[in-house]
Amino acid sequence: MIDDEKNLSSFLNDFAAVKGPKILVHGGGKIATKMGDSLGLESKYVNGRRITDAATIDLVTMVYGGLVNKKMVALLQSKGCNAIGLTGADANILPAKKRPVKEVDYGFVGDVDSSQLTVSSLQLLLKGGLVPVMAPLTHDGQGQMLNTNADTIASTLAVGLSTLYDVRLIYCFEKKGVLENVEDEHSVIRLITKDIYKQLLDGKKLFDGILPKIDNAFAAIGNGVQEVLIGDARDLQRNTTADTIGTLIK
Amino acid sequence: MIDDEKNLSSFLNDFAAVKGPKILVHGGGKIATKMGDSLGLESKYVNGRRITDAATIDLVTMVYGGLVNKKMVALLQSKGCNAIGLTGADANILPAKKRPVKEVDYGFVGDVDSSQLTVSSLQLLLKGGLVPVMAPLTHDGQGQMLNTNADTIASTLAVGLSTLYDVRLIYCFEKKGVLENVEDEHSVIRLITKDIYKQLLDGKKLFDGILPKIDNAFAAIGNGVQEVLIGDARDLQRNTTADTIGTLIK
Repeated sequence: MIDDEKNLSSFLNDFAAVKGPKILVHGGGKIATKMGDSLGLESKYVNGRRITDAATIDLVTMVYGGLVNKKMVALLQSKGCNAIGLTGADANILPAKKRPVKEVDYGFVGDVDSSQLTVSSLQLLLKGGLVPVMAPLTHDGQGQMLNTNADTIASTLAVGLSTLYDVRLIYCFEKKGVLENVEDEHSVIRLITKDIYKQLLDGKKLFDGILPKIDNAFAAIGNGVQEVLIGDARDLQRNTTADTIGTLIK
Repeated sequence: MIDDEKNLSSFLNDFAAVKGPKILVHGGGKIATKMGDSLGLESKYVNGRRITDAATIDLVTMVYGGLVNKKMVALLQSKGCNAIGLTGADANILPAKKRPVKEVDYGFVGDVDSSQLTVSSLQLLLKGGLVPVMAPLTHDGQGQMLNTNADTIASTLAVGLSTLYDVRLIYCFEKKGVLENVEDEHSVIRLITKDIYKQLLDGKKLFDGILPKIDNAFAAIGNGVQEVLIGDARDLQRNTTADTIGTLIK
């Protein structure tokens, strides 16, 4: 979405049109890797997971917190949406703990907990009619920015805000929803409850890659979030209504 | 200040200690040029003025709006100051007009006007106990970020806010204040009124480079700002009290 100007603009049109208090959490797309290549930084991986060294946290702070975030904010403003771009450091919205070094030192990666969310800061902005646009960055409270997964930030915000609001957490990706048959775009499972999930798991129907998303969804629901939707970014408008078209998890 | 970690931290300690509503407007230091060099971008100048082409506006959005801004926010948070990092696009705080092309096309440079300042957004944040930290960036309201001089943003904010607050605008630089003798660090002129300014100009006492700063200061005062102070960043604490040590312009 983020890497394609036309798709991004179309998505932001839909987002701008969503009624009521809303928050957008974004990732970084391929721009950070591209920019890192231009700067001669090498991406480091251990066990398939990216390591955030000192140069990388500066890179992602620039790209996610600066370039991508402000581009989205400026576009949303042009579409009549009063966006305000933020990281977890701003207004201390989401302090994190640097991931402890065990077998692997992930570097400047922040682990978050919804109990640490500064709900009052978000509430101030939402009540003021502002639309927070969150980059996938947090801070350690001691002056250091940290890299945090965007999906995790989204669910942490959703859980933290569910004490004050009825929250629908929508994960936008490039498929129509959770597919019963990963080869068939039209095999979207429209509703997953705990019972249905158990049946699907027993039948080994689901693509492995989708399991963490569903597990996260149930974790969020177990912690107060009303409902979670997994769907196509292009279906955002429909998926914010009662008549959803993606996979609703309840 | 920004380029030296120790000086920056010491300055931010002083800023964090300032009582009452406050806003910090920062520039970019030498980091943008350094990062531009690493990315193989060439700085373009016409008549000694930097041209902001498409690659450069992306660069400064990354560096000023991301790296520098979030570093300052995270440091201020660690010092107990509830900072929130912003550009003029965020909450539509400062929309600008792309500078018209005449003899020179300055590119993505934004000209600002205090009548365009969204005072209500700043007031919401200040009333909420937040401390805005502004990067020298604005937007055109049509989705494009623009580069705007930090001194200009500071005076525009000061003038716009003077409808609601008594404002002291403090310009921090590397000298103790306006010097009567540029060779003598101790020759600070402690007070400049319009009459004193006229005498100084008549006596050709002042260093040419300081004249635009003083003219800007009188322009701000003419538009409602209570007082302007030009002083050393290291003297910030003293210069926020009644017993100033820099050059007070009234």
